[in-house]
Amino acid sequence: MALIVQKYGGSSVGNLDRIHHVAEKVIKAKQEGHHVVVVVSAMYGETDRLIRLASALTQHYEPREYDVLIASGEQVSMALLSMALNAKNCPARSFTGPQVGIYTDNIHTKARILKVKTEVIQRELEKDRIVVVAGFQGVNEHGDITTLGRGGSDTTAVAIAAALKADECQIYTDVDGVYTTDPHFLPAARLIPRISFEEMLELASLGAKVLQMRSVELASKHNMPIRVLSTFSDGPGTLVTFEDKTMQKRLVSGIAFSREEAIISLSGVPRKLGMEGHILGRVSEANIEIDMIAQNASTRDDTSDFTFTVNRREYQRAMSVIEELVTELDTMINIKTNSKVAKLSLVGIGMRSHAGVATTMFKALGREGINIQMITTSEIKISVVVDEEHLEKGVQAIHQAFELDKAESDKNPPFFE
Amino acid sequence: MALIVQKYGGSSVGNLDRIHHVAEKVIKAKQEGHHVVVVVSAMYGETDRLIRLASALTQHYEPREYDVLIASGEQVSMALLSMALNAKNCPARSFTGPQVGIYTDNIHTKARILKVKTEVIQRELEKDRIVVVAGFQGVNEHGDITTLGRGGSDTTAVAIAAALKADECQIYTDVDGVYTTDPHFLPAARLIPRISFEEMLELASLGAKVLQMRSVELASKHNMPIRVLSTFSDGPGTLVTFEDKTMQKRLVSGIAFSREEAIISLSGVPRKLGMEGHILGRVSEANIEIDMIAQNASTRDDTSDFTFTVNRREYQRAMSVIEELVTELDTMINIKTNSKVAKLSLVGIGMRSHAGVATTMFKALGREGINIQMITTSEIKISVVVDEEHLEKGVQAIHQAFELDKAESDKNPPFFE
Repeated sequence: MALIVQKYGGSSVGNLDRIHHVAEKVIKAKQEGHHVVVVVSAMYGETDRLIRLASALTQHYEPREYDVLIASGEQVSMALLSMALNAKNCPARSFTGPQVGIYTDNIHTKARILKVKTEVIQRELEKDRIVVVAGFQGVNEHGDITTLGRGGSDTTAVAIAAALKADECQIYTDVDGVYTTDPHFLPAARLIPRISFEEMLELASLGAKVLQMRSVELASKHNMPIRVLSTFSDGPGTLVTFEDKTMQKRLVSGIAFSREEAIISLSGVPRKLGMEGHILGRVSEANIEIDMIAQNASTRDDTSDFTFTVNRREYQRAMSVIEELVTELDTMINIKTNSKVAKLSLVGIGMRSHAGVATTMFKALGREGINIQMITTSEIKISVVVDEEHLEKGVQAIHQAFELDKAESDKNPPFFE
Repeated sequence: MALIVQKYGGSSVGNLDRIHHVAEKVIKAKQEGHHVVVVVSAMYGETDRLIRLASALTQHYEPREYDVLIASGEQVSMALLSMALNAKNCPARSFTGPQVGIYTDNIHTKARILKVKTEVIQRELEKDRIVVVAGFQGVNEHGDITTLGRGGSDTTAVAIAAALKADECQIYTDVDGVYTTDPHFLPAARLIPRISFEEMLELASLGAKVLQMRSVELASKHNMPIRVLSTFSDGPGTLVTFEDKTMQKRLVSGIAFSREEAIISLSGVPRKLGMEGHILGRVSEANIEIDMIAQNASTRDDTSDFTFTVNRREYQRAMSVIEELVTELDTMINIKTNSKVAKLSLVGIGMRSHAGVATTMFKALGREGINIQMITTSEIKISVVVDEEHLEKGVQAIHQAFELDKAESDKNPPFFE
């Protein structure tokens, strides 16, 4: 008998039929002999409806009251799921975040979980009931309702799983796991059966929107395995877990990419102490988020080339700031930009110990005649910026070069331990 | 500086414009120098929407989960009102029933309030904030969310007012007070400035649907004055308060009536011990609610006449039960019925000490040629059953006979003390 925490997102409980379907899945796990705690998000569209109400009421709402308002969304879905379970003769009880004792800090609308009490849940599990818990919400030291910010239900599930020392935390979504790259984009993309927390973090932050980043961080910290599964189809999904030898042998795990990028290159930037901070400071003061940064010293004179990327919708604003700055600096800085680029990132813990990953990647792109406009690297990731029109070809070339479409078969242990 | 508890019902907070309007009213009271606690119902239609969701999900829902579900409705409206207040620079904080500490028994869906903690509210009032509280809900000894049943927000408001020893509990509705009779029915009806708890209870139970009965009982028990006011127009409303000399001088306060009644008369019922219980028992076993009961011993033989009324929509079922019973009893019982009658009730604490109220009433009806089919009386009430077609004429005649259309002017103390 294992203890499993399952989390179902908003689209999984988006209507009454789906709530019945989720109830069946929960009952199946229970019938397999497991204790089950279920974390639910608000029904699809409900949180947005509540936010629209608040926005239509006033433009300056108190964060505390905003949290009170939107926390009601999960209260509805948890009650309905619990009703559906009880109606199917599966004893269940639902609890809000504050009722369970999910303690957070005081940062309304994006609180962080500090502590999860387990008494209430354990009392109910001992009575052999399913425990349904509202995701996304908690209570602060003053007894006020707090919410964790978008996607916070994943974090709730992982935090409860960690506090209960559960055997597995299952995150049910509308995709059936984590893929080597977006399968809508590249049909050859393959489901990754096991992936390390670290790789998942890189993939999550790079645009593979399967799991909320904070939940992966938390799972990693507590060594709590997360299984990403589909609510709507069967299958083993992807197990996100601590690093093992098999994963290390694998060179790369997946390719993440994001469109909607814009690149700004400055060449001839005087090499003065603090110059980079000066440039980026002005951009971020304008509340423009900078993604990638690369700098190279020029070999010809005492200047640098300085390149960074921003989200495309902030490109015009970023350019105004930069042009103003260049005028102020009164030097011979050249600006080169491209607002139609994409970022392509290769992720894999294997690349830590295997040289040549970058070479293989760049060669693959070169063979396709794709010009690399910028490169940044981290320990387990290589990101490049290419023309957006080359993105598809690029992903395909790299996917093939690393044989990501081939099943790992004997290279991997069985899906379930 | 007074402490006022205000309660706004579902139609008062039915949309965002109305919530702004309510916020203005609350701010006005605050600007007049009062501490204000506001109790709100769910936005109009919201509770029904949630109940429809539950009913569409399953026919057999757990009462505990039903309470969790519908309690979310007040959480939405309280947050929105608090936001509106804060947006108007009036510091406010909203609290659910469990957060305040409104402790109830364990009877889900119709819980009774056992205790109201005042610490949270008092702490906020000391900080000069408006306290917005969810009506209709509380928490039981296990920490489970409970609801008080329809109209329960009135009770929440009175219970909080009593616990805080507030100066007044103001119930805002869509009518501007309690009238001598329904003003839609009789334009001569006049607003009653002051009325006793006892009279209000009789009027409430007789169909003047202004205040929930349990809230009046609670107010009476704690001697907590309730003022009934309109959210949508200004005016002093009606103060429901403890009995005073002025009220006692007034013969009658108001006329309540209900249509949709049906009368069933049995004559020749054998006078045996327990016979009445036998008859009524069978009716109530069929879950038919009996309203009025009257019995007269026959002067000719050893039988009684036995008359009672039921709601018209239960008339057919009641008749089946009675016919079956009469067959069983195998005696010469005559059944006389009228399914198109109405009840008309005269209420006033003054009638306790003034003889002749009944005489005036019956004479007034007689002058109009209205036949009285049944009479029941209590200490401060006389109810008669008449043909429904005579109802309007009857109410008019009695209203005039007791000069209820005339202002009480010098007979009454000023509206506000």
